[in-house]
Amino acid sequence: MPDIAFLNGAFLPLAEARVSVEDRGFLFGDGVYEVIRTYDGAPFLLPAHLDRLERSMAEVRLVPDWNRAALEGWIAEATERAGYPDAKIYAQVTRGAAPREHKFPDVPVTTLIAVTPIASLPRKLQDEGAAVISVPDLRWGRCDVKSLQLLPNVMARQEAAEAGAFEALLVGPDGVVNEGAGSNLFVVKGGALVTPALGPRILAGVSRGYLLDLARGMGVATEERDLTLAEIYDADEVLLSGTTTEVLGVVRVDGRTVGDGRPGPITRRLAAAFRPSGSKVG
Amino acid sequence: MPDIAFLNGAFLPLAEARVSVEDRGFLFGDGVYEVIRTYDGAPFLLPAHLDRLERSMAEVRLVPDWNRAALEGWIAEATERAGYPDAKIYAQVTRGAAPREHKFPDVPVTTLIAVTPIASLPRKLQDEGAAVISVPDLRWGRCDVKSLQLLPNVMARQEAAEAGAFEALLVGPDGVVNEGAGSNLFVVKGGALVTPALGPRILAGVSRGYLLDLARGMGVATEERDLTLAEIYDADEVLLSGTTTEVLGVVRVDGRTVGDGRPGPITRRLAAAFRPSGSKVG
Repeated sequence: MPDIAFLNGAFLPLAEARVSVEDRGFLFGDGVYEVIRTYDGAPFLLPAHLDRLERSMAEVRLVPDWNRAALEGWIAEATERAGYPDAKIYAQVTRGAAPREHKFPDVPVTTLIAVTPIASLPRKLQDEGAAVISVPDLRWGRCDVKSLQLLPNVMARQEAAEAGAFEALLVGPDGVVNEGAGSNLFVVKGGALVTPALGPRILAGVSRGYLLDLARGMGVATEERDLTLAEIYDADEVLLSGTTTEVLGVVRVDGRTVGDGRPGPITRRLAAAFRPSGSKVG
Repeated sequence: MPDIAFLNGAFLPLAEARVSVEDRGFLFGDGVYEVIRTYDGAPFLLPAHLDRLERSMAEVRLVPDWNRAALEGWIAEATERAGYPDAKIYAQVTRGAAPREHKFPDVPVTTLIAVTPIASLPRKLQDEGAAVISVPDLRWGRCDVKSLQLLPNVMARQEAAEAGAFEALLVGPDGVVNEGAGSNLFVVKGGALVTPALGPRILAGVSRGYLLDLARGMGVATEERDLTLAEIYDADEVLLSGTTTEVLGVVRVDGRTVGDGRPGPITRRLAAAFRPSGSKVG
């Protein structure tokens, strides 16, 4: 099967899925989304992703014309039709298509689900760890909402790619590092796993929450508090989490070597424990 | 003729214009735009709009596969095909359609021009003036770029509409009022026209620049500097400018009456002088 889309009630090849140029996703970035991955055909942490999608919709007052059970059914059918054991399920809801005017139109939402194959990060990157850079955090005031306001993330990740880095860390004007442009940030300091506390500049990452639980289950203390760039440079370990990033050690930040330049022991334990048991992903 | 779109080389009815769901405008808000209006068939201040579009593209590193002369030709043809004497010309450029990944894809941009009829604001609103509210400015860090990062503007304008107000003024955490969610802001204080100075939180409005020139030509002093909400409450006159807003007096801010509750004399002079001479628009 080709990559599959579900768009407003119909399943079709992703390459054929089109929306009106008057869709508010296209004109205003007026929508929210989720990225879910499957391991061996099973969506990972799906309830948490759907909880967050519901929260994102509520925060921007997007009212779907379907319920969660219907969405779950479409996700299951699209995933089955695509047939990839390891798939990326992308789900997006926008405020529909209507003549361009800022205020909310009285039209149904646009609902997209797209299923494409996913590859794990290269083994070498996982083993050796990643480089990251820091850039100013130019995002809007509601980064806790997983919205389509992603141009600053795009610019930051492009800058990272051009610097040969995997990710860009987003630093506020107060010098506090919020998260990566597409991942959450953690450090290990004195044996504890530390990550920025939730708030309007932090996405409540599904993988972030899962990782904190994993750490506690292993007896690793966790802390949620502000982190400065200086603390990150000086950390024993630095790591990123995300649905497609999974758990990834960071070994260089702005060209400075973290720890001994290899993913540290807590990072390696967390990475090994992250995937669902029995997963055959390499 | 119906509303006309130009999309990637072809003219077609706007209602039939569709883009891939993988367009980066739809997935990331990764694009920039302009709104131009015609009076009696002639685009108003077109060179300034195209200058700004070029600047917006450059600032977010969007590289079109066409030149300005081609765009001017498409705008002229779309406007002529639509045939509305008073039209809204909407032009948008996104970073094209490609499998979803933040960093820039190597694909052509998506270029949209849409021409729809425009109505002036209701005569009563122009004569009696508008109410506005103030809301926190939640926009991203590059409001000088006319980008698709518009969800905060959407939320602000919806809140204004629900409050019975025409516009929402966007107030920074420092208490400085930047602009309206879809217009630039001016006050009259001691006979001078004052507007926030250009910077990353202000769009260099084409109408804003034109209005400052108009004022100077009338012998009205102009100042560009920060404005606080307290200064706005206390102003002699408050007004908004924009391509579709034109010049609009504001007579209530957060429920407080401005001046004597009617558009003031400088506002009325500027509004009368704003449209191209000979325009029949009412």
